[in-house]
Amino acid sequence: MTITSNVPADRNAPPITYKLAEFVATHDSGGWDESVEHDAHRTFFNWLGCAIGASNHPAVNIALAAAKEIEPSRQATILGRPEKVDMGSAALINGISSHTFDFDDTHLKTIIHPAGPVASAVVALAEKVASSGREVIDALVLGIDVSCRIGNVIYPDHYDRGWHITGTTGSLGAAAGCARLLRLDTQQVAMALGIAASQPIGVREQFGTMTKPMHPGASARAGLFSALMARHGFTASDRAIEAARGFVQTISDKRKWDEATDQLGERFEISFNTFKPYACGIVIHPSIDGCVRLTRRHKLRPENIKRVILKVHSLVLELTGKPEPKTGLEGKFSVFHGCAVGIIYGVAGEAQYDDSIVNQADVVALRNKVEAIVDDRVGEEQAVVTIQCHDGREYTEHVEHAIGSIENPMTDIQLEEKFDALVGPVLGAAKVRQLTELSWSLARELNVNKLIFTAQP
Amino acid sequence: MTITSNVPADRNAPPITYKLAEFVATHDSGGWDESVEHDAHRTFFNWLGCAIGASNHPAVNIALAAAKEIEPSRQATILGRPEKVDMGSAALINGISSHTFDFDDTHLKTIIHPAGPVASAVVALAEKVASSGREVIDALVLGIDVSCRIGNVIYPDHYDRGWHITGTTGSLGAAAGCARLLRLDTQQVAMALGIAASQPIGVREQFGTMTKPMHPGASARAGLFSALMARHGFTASDRAIEAARGFVQTISDKRKWDEATDQLGERFEISFNTFKPYACGIVIHPSIDGCVRLTRRHKLRPENIKRVILKVHSLVLELTGKPEPKTGLEGKFSVFHGCAVGIIYGVAGEAQYDDSIVNQADVVALRNKVEAIVDDRVGEEQAVVTIQCHDGREYTEHVEHAIGSIENPMTDIQLEEKFDALVGPVLGAAKVRQLTELSWSLARELNVNKLIFTAQP
Repeated sequence: MTITSNVPADRNAPPITYKLAEFVATHDSGGWDESVEHDAHRTFFNWLGCAIGASNHPAVNIALAAAKEIEPSRQATILGRPEKVDMGSAALINGISSHTFDFDDTHLKTIIHPAGPVASAVVALAEKVASSGREVIDALVLGIDVSCRIGNVIYPDHYDRGWHITGTTGSLGAAAGCARLLRLDTQQVAMALGIAASQPIGVREQFGTMTKPMHPGASARAGLFSALMARHGFTASDRAIEAARGFVQTISDKRKWDEATDQLGERFEISFNTFKPYACGIVIHPSIDGCVRLTRRHKLRPENIKRVILKVHSLVLELTGKPEPKTGLEGKFSVFHGCAVGIIYGVAGEAQYDDSIVNQADVVALRNKVEAIVDDRVGEEQAVVTIQCHDGREYTEHVEHAIGSIENPMTDIQLEEKFDALVGPVLGAAKVRQLTELSWSLARELNVNKLIFTAQP
Repeated sequence: MTITSNVPADRNAPPITYKLAEFVATHDSGGWDESVEHDAHRTFFNWLGCAIGASNHPAVNIALAAAKEIEPSRQATILGRPEKVDMGSAALINGISSHTFDFDDTHLKTIIHPAGPVASAVVALAEKVASSGREVIDALVLGIDVSCRIGNVIYPDHYDRGWHITGTTGSLGAAAGCARLLRLDTQQVAMALGIAASQPIGVREQFGTMTKPMHPGASARAGLFSALMARHGFTASDRAIEAARGFVQTISDKRKWDEATDQLGERFEISFNTFKPYACGIVIHPSIDGCVRLTRRHKLRPENIKRVILKVHSLVLELTGKPEPKTGLEGKFSVFHGCAVGIIYGVAGEAQYDDSIVNQADVVALRNKVEAIVDDRVGEEQAVVTIQCHDGREYTEHVEHAIGSIENPMTDIQLEEKFDALVGPVLGAAKVRQLTELSWSLARELNVNKLIFTAQP
């Protein structure tokens, strides 16, 4: 037969789906250096703390009430709580709780929060199939490599369009991690990735609502089911990620194909994962850091402050420009609120995003003195903060690397303090100590269920 | 505070999410004329036949095996089978089976197959909550109105990008239908639509694999869970569909806002739903129709045919240009196969898409004589078919309205014959008769479970 047709889009994309599948199926267990292994444990530990910390939040209560409508079996634990649900619902709910405080990890190159989708899916499945800690770490490293590599391919165009890149790439990462845990072969992993490629989750309009943390949860569940369906023989395109009408080209106008497989198995994206000191959107952190530094250094008192002037990249206001937040959740999307509590409290932990603090008179008053000026010569990861006092003093700080960045990372001790602050109020000091130890030694644990059992009240 | 920022995209879109929510929550039960009511019953009946007809297909067996991994409760029936699963899994699996033969309904303005997502979600939930037939029909009409109206807003740009519009708009339609069935109020329906707006399902690269029919299934499940979460108080943006970083603007570069709410409650999109006489992609139908007409009219014999020349719109080859299908599923995406069986058998039902027929020597030989020429002066719903014979005869047919189109619809009797051919082999003649009667009288049934019980073997 003769075919005469327009050829749209890029039909010559490299075989990414298959190459990533082969990598996930065949890469050696622990086949990376010590620093990658350590970063994987940090990623797991930070995710666990965030998930337990928010486990009694209304968003989690509601998601659990909805999940109960399907009368779920008791396969997997909701971290920090006594309830068990089917592993799909556990992936959903732990994914929600891990992102509810917006306090989780960030792959700065893409603003992906990679652990939420991947770890939530892998751990729910691991509990059901009684995986070893080694298998969980392997699945986490490989799953996050897949989601962040695809993120590198499509960022920033994809994100700029309005997609919440954590949830869209999260389905792929969760599918990869679960496929690894199930020891699927290359062809089956390709099918799992293919099935997941039809399930991108999340648009940015949801920021400030419960649906934002639902994105990593829903993508965790979608990825887990994709792997299960692939195991039983369900078919998808083995070019689902790269084809002309596949995931990448449908979801993004621009793409850097090389990012998908360059140095595959040599460079691991989990090495570029970072952890937040402040419980809010990452783009706010440099501004808060600048406020905290100036306040400490010059012993400033809030009542003495006349104006706070921020010079920031346009993305800061697009993502976190809420001028008058009314709830803690909205406060996380307000650079103005973050700066006010940074000055008043010297920190911006979950406590500073309580509804009562967001509406407290002194916080509101100081917030109203914060001005933001967009200047795209200032990098997304930077801020120039100027504080003017009523007594005429004026100080300026140019924050190039906020704490928690690649260049200025949180130490393991700081991560433990963060974990303690999140988990202590939920499970108590003894479990904080046990979970801290079990997390650092995870790769040596024969059965992940010891840790998961400890994560219950 | 002062905000200086670029304002991207369209920030002045009308309040579509809220208006549609209000419509779904408050429109009168049966608040439409007799023809809409009749079209709703035709839509339900055709969906039911397709779902039962494919209920023993490998895609359904595999999806069920995967669903069993979560040890589901026995809440809802897999149509045509003895098994029951939780209502989320039932929505997924019935959605898969209803689209597996690619024999389901088509909203021609958008190429959406609307019943798959909406009916599969609504019926699974209806079984659990023991809804009346009246409530099911109401949910079906309103849910399909939502998905097809949003489809009208974004078609064709959204589809051209590579999205499978059935699954992307399906999550919204399923959420709307389930929200109606649960009698959620306007604010809750808005949240259900908001949650669903973060879960578009499906890219076109999957056409020809099991993941294509998974799209309506996964969107049915996503929509159902969205309604359940909304009922319990989960929050989303109440501008999630129309906002600058919401569903429509993220997923499509062009949009016709008016389509969302023009004549809302007066014009119903279910009126524009059509039903397929042939078990393959709708864009192939005019070509098959032309072949069938010429073969019948001129008593052509396959061995006497030298060439078959099709003039078709470019979309026909983009969607269904597979030159050498190897399986029945691939055959559904081959206009060449469709024409060959149309000439040889005079029909293109599910039997003509069996793997054995796709690989049968006479079919392959005739398929290789079919040529397709793209001519975008020929409408998407048209075809110009020319058949040249070895004896020098040549005939041409310009098909303007294939059978099954709005202008040339299948009759109720033809729908019953189609239902019989699909359901008879699965459930037998007695159940075909009972289900046919129960479907036509659905709005008068006090409990939909009578029909669902009859749909089990």
